[in-house]
Amino acid sequence: MEAPMSALSTLVNHQIRLAARPVGMPKPTDWSHTTEAVAEPQEGGVTLKTLALSLDPAMRGWMNEGKSYIPPVGICEVMRAGGVGQVIASKNPAYAVGDYVSATFGVQEYITIAADEMKRNGLAKIDLRLGSLTQWMNVLGMPGMTGYFGLMDVGQPKAGETVVVSGAAGAVGQTVGQMAKIKGCRVVGIAGGQAKCEWVVKELGFDACIDYKAGPGAVRAGLKEHCPKGVDIYFDNVGGEILDDVLAKITRGARIIICGAISQYNNTTPIQGPKNYLSLLVNRARMEGIVVFDYADRYPLAIAEMAGYIKDGRMKSKEDVVEGLQTFPETLLKLFNGENFGKLVLEVAKN
Amino acid sequence: MEAPMSALSTLVNHQIRLAARPVGMPKPTDWSHTTEAVAEPQEGGVTLKTLALSLDPAMRGWMNEGKSYIPPVGICEVMRAGGVGQVIASKNPAYAVGDYVSATFGVQEYITIAADEMKRNGLAKIDLRLGSLTQWMNVLGMPGMTGYFGLMDVGQPKAGETVVVSGAAGAVGQTVGQMAKIKGCRVVGIAGGQAKCEWVVKELGFDACIDYKAGPGAVRAGLKEHCPKGVDIYFDNVGGEILDDVLAKITRGARIIICGAISQYNNTTPIQGPKNYLSLLVNRARMEGIVVFDYADRYPLAIAEMAGYIKDGRMKSKEDVVEGLQTFPETLLKLFNGENFGKLVLEVAKN
Repeated sequence: MEAPMSALSTLVNHQIRLAARPVGMPKPTDWSHTTEAVAEPQEGGVTLKTLALSLDPAMRGWMNEGKSYIPPVGICEVMRAGGVGQVIASKNPAYAVGDYVSATFGVQEYITIAADEMKRNGLAKIDLRLGSLTQWMNVLGMPGMTGYFGLMDVGQPKAGETVVVSGAAGAVGQTVGQMAKIKGCRVVGIAGGQAKCEWVVKELGFDACIDYKAGPGAVRAGLKEHCPKGVDIYFDNVGGEILDDVLAKITRGARIIICGAISQYNNTTPIQGPKNYLSLLVNRARMEGIVVFDYADRYPLAIAEMAGYIKDGRMKSKEDVVEGLQTFPETLLKLFNGENFGKLVLEVAKN
Repeated sequence: MEAPMSALSTLVNHQIRLAARPVGMPKPTDWSHTTEAVAEPQEGGVTLKTLALSLDPAMRGWMNEGKSYIPPVGICEVMRAGGVGQVIASKNPAYAVGDYVSATFGVQEYITIAADEMKRNGLAKIDLRLGSLTQWMNVLGMPGMTGYFGLMDVGQPKAGETVVVSGAAGAVGQTVGQMAKIKGCRVVGIAGGQAKCEWVVKELGFDACIDYKAGPGAVRAGLKEHCPKGVDIYFDNVGGEILDDVLAKITRGARIIICGAISQYNNTTPIQGPKNYLSLLVNRARMEGIVVFDYADRYPLAIAEMAGYIKDGRMKSKEDVVEGLQTFPETLLKLFNGENFGKLVLEVAKN
């Protein structure tokens, strides 16, 4: 084991902190790079080594001031990030050195967590027999849980219904589409570029995928072609024009799951509201938000179900792994210009 | 009885027809005034005399081309309108001359309905012991049913929750606010002008009412003052800026009932979508449309309940009655500039 307990004090913890609240796309100057010593765990605590961090669109929201579903990251604080890692020091009988865990590490190489912070942190052991380290940040992690509970609890899919999901090649979108196929739905993805669309159809088994970058009107035309009976469920990760295009095609009693609005996160102008929202009235339809943390009590059940689908081949996943903690500021931007192909992972240390 | 059956052929039926699809506010030239003979009822049919018509914001939507929850009124067709009237000729044993009925009369003085059109028309006898003729177009009619089922089925109010309703002095708003009070909620109205606000609080017993015409920021300030715990249910009749102001104040798990968007109906530019819709995500809240016709099977139960509240004084109502079929084109506009005070009724003939 690298870094036995006695050597903690010799380790240097590289960190990336929020230096300023970004206006629009985060710039290099919105971050500061710091180093710190690694603290010894107190009674009941643990020290973890970060192996990989999950980079997610929601992180952009955490950088903004103001009320949201969790407090914003404070200026000068280590940027919040979930991920996977290993216990390197423990004063807690439930965690042994070498155990693999998922936790809110922050964008840093090490974290020491006190006993009374473990629950809030979300620290949990992970079982690599159920899925790989990166799968634990993807289909078995937050994005997977978001897709699972958003689709199943808010969307309530029935066999034969048509489900559309935007950000189809992203972490949440992959899960949503494959879950909907498992539940017997017709699934149409929306993604950027031919490569993503092909992968979503050929590898993940979606019925079709619309390339929103194919030109003006591509989404409207694609929905018309691939959703001849209309859209019963729309899982929205992107907002903007695409949300309006789908609103124009929903069926009576449709459900729209609002998971995110990546097209709007870096706006410097006000958010674009869905101008077709009165389609909710005409169609007696519902638009509802989902925050995954509300379902924490049921993660273990969902993880067990998903692990079964991974094993029997019905749930595939793709991760886009970028190496190096220091690349965080520019790697994060891949999410917002659609450059990532699959769930974006920042590898901080080799396992 | 005026107009016994044998005299039908001597009656002249004045009608108002849709001449052109309005752009923005309906203009006088969007209507044509016609006369016709009154047809004798065929076997199983009835002829009705219009006493009063219900003028409702939804009528503006019926004038537009395009898919909606009911087909648009065709060019040259008599404008669609519900109302109350009396049977003046009958070849149907279920209806006697002199019976009072509610029906889709259209903007005209008489209508003859065939046996096989009665259901689609919505023809039904009304009992003036339960409520007055005008109440049968208000709390016991479509607006009342809309408010009742929107609040109760979509909103699902719980005692102690805060309910906000826009168009509070209108037909639907009156019902929603008083029902919510009956269910033990805190009720805050939004209406235009001091007179309406005072009436809503003093006569209907709302806890507060915000005058949206009181100046910029009036709604935001009013919500802050009168909804200190946030908004659990918002019944939206107006859309636009007010919807955005309320979205900024909703609580976790809030329900927003989309009943209409009167602020947007006469737009010549695209509808203004709610730019604060991501508040649905942050608050795990729901925005859902309601169309009253879906609840037709349950109207009798709701009417019985409402009639009880009228009797015991807990459900009051106010109608704004304008006389004369020929005033229809300008009377309708009162709805869109907020001039009506109470449910807008067009009296076509004295009872």
